[in-house]
Amino acid sequence: MKSNLLFAILIVFQCNVFLFSQNDDDAFFIKEIYNYSLSESQTYEYLHGLCKDVGPRLSGSEGAEKGVEYVKNALLAQEPDSVYLIECMVPHWERGEQASVSISANGEEKKLNCTPLGNSISTNGKTIQGKVIELTHLDSLEKLGREELEGKIVFFNRPMDPTLLSTGHAYGGAVDQRVYGPTRAAKYGASATLVRSMTTLIDDDLPHTGVTVYDSIFKIPALAISTRDAAYLSNQLANSKEVSAAVYSDAQNFDKKLSHSVVGEIRGSEFPDEIILVGGHLDSWDLGEGAHDDGTGCAQSMAVLETLKSLNYQPKRTIRCVLFMNEENGLAGGLSYAEHSNSLEEKHIAAIESDGGGFTPRGFSCTADESVFIEHFKTLKALFEPLESYDLYLKKGGGGADINPLKSQKGILIGLRVDNARYFDLHHTAADVLENVNKRELELGAAAMTSLVYLIDQYGI
Amino acid sequence: MKSNLLFAILIVFQCNVFLFSQNDDDAFFIKEIYNYSLSESQTYEYLHGLCKDVGPRLSGSEGAEKGVEYVKNALLAQEPDSVYLIECMVPHWERGEQASVSISANGEEKKLNCTPLGNSISTNGKTIQGKVIELTHLDSLEKLGREELEGKIVFFNRPMDPTLLSTGHAYGGAVDQRVYGPTRAAKYGASATLVRSMTTLIDDDLPHTGVTVYDSIFKIPALAISTRDAAYLSNQLANSKEVSAAVYSDAQNFDKKLSHSVVGEIRGSEFPDEIILVGGHLDSWDLGEGAHDDGTGCAQSMAVLETLKSLNYQPKRTIRCVLFMNEENGLAGGLSYAEHSNSLEEKHIAAIESDGGGFTPRGFSCTADESVFIEHFKTLKALFEPLESYDLYLKKGGGGADINPLKSQKGILIGLRVDNARYFDLHHTAADVLENVNKRELELGAAAMTSLVYLIDQYGI
Repeated sequence: MKSNLLFAILIVFQCNVFLFSQNDDDAFFIKEIYNYSLSESQTYEYLHGLCKDVGPRLSGSEGAEKGVEYVKNALLAQEPDSVYLIECMVPHWERGEQASVSISANGEEKKLNCTPLGNSISTNGKTIQGKVIELTHLDSLEKLGREELEGKIVFFNRPMDPTLLSTGHAYGGAVDQRVYGPTRAAKYGASATLVRSMTTLIDDDLPHTGVTVYDSIFKIPALAISTRDAAYLSNQLANSKEVSAAVYSDAQNFDKKLSHSVVGEIRGSEFPDEIILVGGHLDSWDLGEGAHDDGTGCAQSMAVLETLKSLNYQPKRTIRCVLFMNEENGLAGGLSYAEHSNSLEEKHIAAIESDGGGFTPRGFSCTADESVFIEHFKTLKALFEPLESYDLYLKKGGGGADINPLKSQKGILIGLRVDNARYFDLHHTAADVLENVNKRELELGAAAMTSLVYLIDQYGI
Repeated sequence: MKSNLLFAILIVFQCNVFLFSQNDDDAFFIKEIYNYSLSESQTYEYLHGLCKDVGPRLSGSEGAEKGVEYVKNALLAQEPDSVYLIECMVPHWERGEQASVSISANGEEKKLNCTPLGNSISTNGKTIQGKVIELTHLDSLEKLGREELEGKIVFFNRPMDPTLLSTGHAYGGAVDQRVYGPTRAAKYGASATLVRSMTTLIDDDLPHTGVTVYDSIFKIPALAISTRDAAYLSNQLANSKEVSAAVYSDAQNFDKKLSHSVVGEIRGSEFPDEIILVGGHLDSWDLGEGAHDDGTGCAQSMAVLETLKSLNYQPKRTIRCVLFMNEENGLAGGLSYAEHSNSLEEKHIAAIESDGGGFTPRGFSCTADESVFIEHFKTLKALFEPLESYDLYLKKGGGGADINPLKSQKGILIGLRVDNARYFDLHHTAADVLENVNKRELELGAAAMTSLVYLIDQYGI
C-alpha cells in the first residue's frame, strides 16, 4: 500500500511537472505572439492596403481582382512555403448609379436614403409607382394575398431587436425580410420591395445593403432604406390611407466571371497532412471599403502567418491562410475551396474564420459536437489568464460561412467571437471604412487567432 | 439510515427548488433591466446633456457649476426620495489660451502640438528657452544632477507599453512622468518640462492633458506634447547635439472655490441604513466634453436609479447615486463625501464606480479582501449566462478613486471593468466628445451596473 501510494504521488508529481513546463512554454510563446501583434505586426498595414489601395471588392468587380492581386503579393512577401489561387465562378452584379425612392403622402413628397439590395434586378429603365403596404412579417404576405398585394410596393419594417445582447442574433431575427422578402412578395404580384436597413441604430441615415435571394421565377426590384426613413415612411402610413412610392433602380446582373480565392501556407514539419486553416473573405460590398466586413478578417488571417514566420516558429502541422472570394453574394469561394480540398483528400483538423468585424475578441465559437472538444479548449483558456485582465472564452456555435463547406472533413470549425456592439452600425454601409476600425482591437483579434493556431498546432485536436 | 437519506434528498431538493426559483426571478428581472436599458432608458440623453448642453466641467469652472445644476435637475426629474448636494472646496486652475512649444534643431524650427498639464504654473509672461534633455525614467534626474539639468528643458519620453493587455496597466506604468516628473526635474534646476502624451497611439497629433502634482517648493511649467511630436523631438535629439525649445504657457492657479457633489437616492424599505452607492465623477478636463471621462459614468449612475424607478422596483436597501466633483485634480468631492458620510455614521455596504469609459462592460473589479466575497459574486455571474453570448466576470482589483475614501466603512468597493482598448486614444483630449461614445456600449454598462445593484440589494453582502 505504501509503495502504491508513493507510486501514485510520483505519477501525480511527474504529470504536474510535465503540465507546468508545457504551460509555461505555451504561456511564454503566447505572450511573444501578443507582444509582436501589438507592436510590430503588419495587421493594420494589410487592412490599410485592402481599404485604401484596393478599395471595395465586390465579386466580379475590378476591385475584387485588385484584391486578389494585393493579398497574393502580400502573402508572397512573407515567403511562406507556397502561395496559390483556387478558381471559382462568381456572380457579377452592379449596383448602378441612379437608385431612388420617393414617397408621396399627405401632399408631401420626400426622397429617401436608399440603395439596391445585392442581386436586385433593375426597374427596367422605368419608375415603378405604387401604393405602399407596410409589413413586419413575411407570413403576412400570404394572409393578404394577391388581391391586396398586386401592383403594390411592399415595405418590410420589422426592426432588429435592440434588447438581444448579441447583435448577431438580432440580425438573424430580422434578415429574412431582406433575403426572402422580395421574392416572396413577388409571388403575390407586388411590384417592388423596400426593406428597413438591418441595423440596431434607430435614427440612422445610411442605407445598409446586403444580398437578396430570388427563386428562379419571382423577381422584383428590392431596395434598402435607412432606419430614419423607415420611421418616416411608417409614420406617413400611420397618418394617411394613401402613401405611394416611386422606385427606380438601374442595378444589373451580368454573366458569371472567373475569380479566385487566395491561399498561403506554411507546411507542417511533423504532420503536414493535418491542416489548420485561418481565413476571412476577400470580397466585400461596394458601398464602403469592406473594412470590418471582412478586410479585418483577411488582415488578421494574413497576420497569423506573418507573426509565426517572424517569431521563427516552425509549425508541426500545415498552417494555411485562405482569403475566400464571394462570401457576400454566393459563397462560390468557400464551396470551390472545399471541393478542391476534398478532391485532394485533404484533412482540415481545424478551420478558424474571422468574419464578425475587427473588434475586441471575446473568444471563439466552435462547432465541436462532442464535449471532449469543449473540454480540450477549456484547458487552452487557462493559458490566457496570465495575460492580465484579458479573457477569451469558448462557446459552442458556428464557425463561419466560408469554412462551413469543410464540415464533411469532420474537423473543428471555429469562429472568432468579437464584441459586436458596434458591428451593425457599419455593416454593409458606406461607413465600413478603415477609419472606423481601431488598430488595437484589430491586433488583439489577430493575436487571439495566432495563439489558438499555435495551441492547435502544438497539441492537435 | 433510509430515513436519513430521504431527509438529505429532501433538503437537497428543497435547496434546488429554492435556488432555481430565486435564480429564475433574478434572471427575469435582470432581463427586464437589460431590455429597458437597451431600448428605453435615458442613459444616452443624460450623456448628451452633459456633453452638449453643459460641455467641459473642470473643477472651479462655470462648466462644472452648470454640470452640478444639470445633474441635480435630471435627478429631481426622476422623483427619487431625495436629491441633495455635498460641499467641497475645489482647486481652480485655468489652462490659458497661449501655450506653445517650439523646437529649434539642425537649423529647423517647428511648433509642437502641446497643452499645459493640469495644475501647471505659467511661464510668467515670458518664453522659457533652453536646451532639451530627453529622459525615460525619473531616476535619471538624480544621476544627471543639477550640473546637467540646471536651466534645461526636461523631456520625458517613455511610451505607454502597447504590449500590456490592459491599457490601464500601460498608463500606470508611464504616468509617473506626468504626475511627478515636473516637480522632480524642478529640484535639479530644470526650467520647464515636456511630457510625452499618455496614449498607446504612437502617431497621434493630440496632446493629452492630465494632472501634475508639485511639492510645496519645486514648481516649473509642464506641458504635454503629442506622441507624433514626441517622436519628432526624439529624432531631432538623436541627430543633433543642440536641440533647444522655447516654451510659453499662461496657465494659472486661482483661489479654491466652493463646489458640490450631487446625490440622488431611493431609500430602502427593509434595510435603509445599508447603502449601495453607484457613481462617477462630474468634473472633467476642459479640452473635450468629458464624454468617456467621466460623463459616461455619471450617465450610467443616473440611469441605475432611473431604470429601477421605471421598472417599479422598490429596493430593500438604500440606493444612492453620487456624482462626485473634482476627481481629476484633487479628489475633493470623494474626500468630502466620505467625511460627510462618516460623520453621519453611515454604512456603505457596496460602492460601484464607473470611471473607465463608456465601453462594452467586461465585468467588475472588486476590493473584497476575503475570498468569501469573491465566492459570493461568482454565484452572481451565473445569472448573466442566460443573456446570450454575454459574459461579465469579477476580478479582484480596485473600485475607483472617488469611492476609495469610503474604505474605512469596510464595505466592498467595486469598479465597472470595460473593454479599454480605445480609452487612451481619447483620454484627456479634445477628442473625448459624445461622438466617440457608442450608445449601445454605454447602455450595456448601465445595464450591468443596475443588475449588480439589484443583486446586492436582494441578497446583501
